[in-house]
Amino acid sequence: MARIVQKYGGSSVADADCMRRVAQRIHETREAGNDVVVVVSAMGDTTDELIQLAQEVHASPDDREMDQLMAAGEQISSSVLTMALHAMGCEAVSMTGPQAGIRTDAAHTRAKITGIDPARVHQALGFGRVVIIAGFQGLTPASDVATLGRGGSDTTAVALAAALEADKCQIFTDVDGVYTTDPRICSGARKLDRITCDEVLELASLGAKVLHSRSVEIAKKYGVRLEVLSSFKRSPGTEIVEGDSSMEDVVVRGIAADKGQCKVTLHGVPDSPGVAARVFHRLADHDVNVDMIVQNVSEEGHTNISFTIPVSDMKRAKTAADELSRELEAQGVDFDEDIAKVSIVGIGMKSHSGVASRMFSALAEHGINIGMISTSEIKISIVIARDSADEAVRVLHKSFELE
Amino acid sequence: MARIVQKYGGSSVADADCMRRVAQRIHETREAGNDVVVVVSAMGDTTDELIQLAQEVHASPDDREMDQLMAAGEQISSSVLTMALHAMGCEAVSMTGPQAGIRTDAAHTRAKITGIDPARVHQALGFGRVVIIAGFQGLTPASDVATLGRGGSDTTAVALAAALEADKCQIFTDVDGVYTTDPRICSGARKLDRITCDEVLELASLGAKVLHSRSVEIAKKYGVRLEVLSSFKRSPGTEIVEGDSSMEDVVVRGIAADKGQCKVTLHGVPDSPGVAARVFHRLADHDVNVDMIVQNVSEEGHTNISFTIPVSDMKRAKTAADELSRELEAQGVDFDEDIAKVSIVGIGMKSHSGVASRMFSALAEHGINIGMISTSEIKISIVIARDSADEAVRVLHKSFELE
Repeated sequence: MARIVQKYGGSSVADADCMRRVAQRIHETREAGNDVVVVVSAMGDTTDELIQLAQEVHASPDDREMDQLMAAGEQISSSVLTMALHAMGCEAVSMTGPQAGIRTDAAHTRAKITGIDPARVHQALGFGRVVIIAGFQGLTPASDVATLGRGGSDTTAVALAAALEADKCQIFTDVDGVYTTDPRICSGARKLDRITCDEVLELASLGAKVLHSRSVEIAKKYGVRLEVLSSFKRSPGTEIVEGDSSMEDVVVRGIAADKGQCKVTLHGVPDSPGVAARVFHRLADHDVNVDMIVQNVSEEGHTNISFTIPVSDMKRAKTAADELSRELEAQGVDFDEDIAKVSIVGIGMKSHSGVASRMFSALAEHGINIGMISTSEIKISIVIARDSADEAVRVLHKSFELE
Repeated sequence: MARIVQKYGGSSVADADCMRRVAQRIHETREAGNDVVVVVSAMGDTTDELIQLAQEVHASPDDREMDQLMAAGEQISSSVLTMALHAMGCEAVSMTGPQAGIRTDAAHTRAKITGIDPARVHQALGFGRVVIIAGFQGLTPASDVATLGRGGSDTTAVALAAALEADKCQIFTDVDGVYTTDPRICSGARKLDRITCDEVLELASLGAKVLHSRSVEIAKKYGVRLEVLSSFKRSPGTEIVEGDSSMEDVVVRGIAADKGQCKVTLHGVPDSPGVAARVFHRLADHDVNVDMIVQNVSEEGHTNISFTIPVSDMKRAKTAADELSRELEAQGVDFDEDIAKVSIVGIGMKSHSGVASRMFSALAEHGINIGMISTSEIKISIVIARDSADEAVRVLHKSFELE
């Protein structure tokens, strides 16, 4: 008998039929003799509908009230899923995040889990019940409900798996695992049976949207065995492992593309100590999330600083960049919304040389021009024209023999 | 400066526009220098939609899970109403029933309030905030959410008014007060400026649906000043008072009709001690709510027992009555769904004779036949054919000079 935490996303519980299908799967896992704890997201579009409702009465609603509102979505789905299990004769009980003992900090709408007191969950498991927990929420020190932000249900599931010392944490989603790249872009995309935490982290943060990064970080930190699989198909998914020597032969594991960014360049800023710090401090003040940063070599005491940001932060970034340009007496500011970031990820890169040159050559052969480059130990990201992104993914997928 | 508890029903907060109108009213009450605590029901049809959702996955969902589900409705409306107040620059905070310190027993879906710890509400009022509380819910001894059943938001409001020692409890609804009878049936119906608790209790339990009976009982017990008024019109409502000598001249205060009942008769049951007890004990076992009970005089050691029940309890009542008929060797069971109960209510009846004969004569003059009669100190109820109900209301309204 194992203890298994399962997480089902919003599309997996979108209506009564989906609920029954998910309940059937949970019931089978329970019947196989396992202790089962389930974390569930809000049904289908509920979260978006609640956000819209809030915006009808307030242009920028208070965070604490937003959390009070949003938490209702998962409360609804968790109780309905529990009823669907009852209908199959499966003993089950629903719990809100606070009832399940999930404690968070006070950062409403983007709270972090500070601890879990799993006493009530243990008690229910002891009675032989499946426990269905509302994802993405917990209790603040002030006894308010806080949400963990989008993707927070994954985090709830992994944190619970760690607290309950579960044997496995299964993330059910609308894809059946982690792919070498997006199958909608590249027909040769292949499902991976296993991938390391580090690799999936790079893929997740690069727009492959398989798992929420924080959930993978927690899984890595607490050694939770993670698995991504389809809630619609009955096929094996992708296991996320801590590290695997057999993988070291493989250089590149996946290709990710992110078309949701734009590029900002500050031209001709003084190349003196503290300038870069000032630039990114100011951007942080304006709540701009900066992703890639590239600074070119200095010429005549001046340099260009380029960085990428999410398209949604563009307006705030413009304000900040204009301020900076004036204060630093820069030669100008450029905004380029017509970009995409394409990355290759693989733990094998660490010990293989020539990956970058192979990447750049393959793109050059197809006339794809590279605008920015940024590298880490296990990934190389480039910025290219947005309309070349899909082609670049296909070229690289083939070039690194991922078919 | 007064402390005022206001309650807004589901139709008063059905959409964003309604929310803003209600928020405006609350804001004005606050601006006038009052401490304001608001109890709100779920938006429009939310409660019915959640019930339907539950029934799509389970024919008779578990009570504890139903409460977990239903409580989300008021959680949504309370946070959205709070946002609407923020949009007007009015300081406000939402609380669920549990957060507001409302404690209940463990009788899920029909819980009773066992106590209120208003510390958190007091604290928020101390900060100058309007407090918006999710109606109809509280926390059980097992730290679960329980609902008070339909109409429970009225009860929440009155119980909070008692616990907070509020100066007034205003129930905003889609009618502008308590009427002498239903204006849709009788065009001469007149709004009452004042009515006693006892009278409104009889009217409420008789189908006039102005206020939930339990809320009036609590108001009476704790001396809460209650007022019913329209959330759409700005006109004075009806005050509910503890008793008023000026009223004693008036014999009858209101006429109520209830078309949601049916009549059951057990024919020829033995007229021996314990039989009636056995009958109503069995009905209670089958969860049948019995309203009027009439037992005729005995003939040759046998008697007929008739009682009325809500139409919704008919199926369970049939099972119980068939069992009883067999066990008691009765001569048969009759079910009549084609009835209505019409009642006249007035505290003045206590000291006036001839009310009953005046009632019966008026009906007889219009050829309306009476099937059952039941009386209390301040009311007389009769059962008549359902299609005569509206006419009976008009006849009695005129006869007792309520125009």
